[in-house]
Amino acid sequence: MKANVHVMLKDGVLDPQGEAIRHALGSMGHTGVNGVRQGKVIALDLADGTSEDQIRAMCEGLLANTVIESYRIEVL
Amino acid sequence: MKANVHVMLKDGVLDPQGEAIRHALGSMGHTGVNGVRQGKVIALDLADGTSEDQIRAMCEGLLANTVIESYRIEVL
Repeated sequence: MKANVHVMLKDGVLDPQGEAIRHALGSMGHTGVNGVRQGKVIALDLADGTSEDQIRAMCEGLLANTVIESYRIEVL
Repeated sequence: MKANVHVMLKDGVLDPQGEAIRHALGSMGHTGVNGVRQGKVIALDLADGTSEDQIRAMCEGLLANTVIESYRIEVL
């Protein structure tokens, strides 16, 4: 089975990488970019029958820093 | 309007970061993780009426390195 974990910085946490992208897009002439946030997507190829609880344990333990990041699990 | 751009390394391109995650998950006792690939998700807050062609131009010009990365645009 496959699952994707999307990890984004929580609202209110400064995202300098996203700001840099926004600035660069503006410099390239792309107007109308009001905001950019960058996150991670981690594509997992898992043994069949892996429970969502197990994936959540991976997120809490390693994949996301839950102090500043939120995550979303998408089982495909 | 909001759009997400998902950027992943193409198949066959070595992903050391994904490998490191796979190894770390194994060390933590999470068995059954057969493969991990890490990618980026870029959340764009755009002016209303921005066309998908314009977003594609941002991807080709800055957000993705199309030699080794593929991207997917998701308009929300």
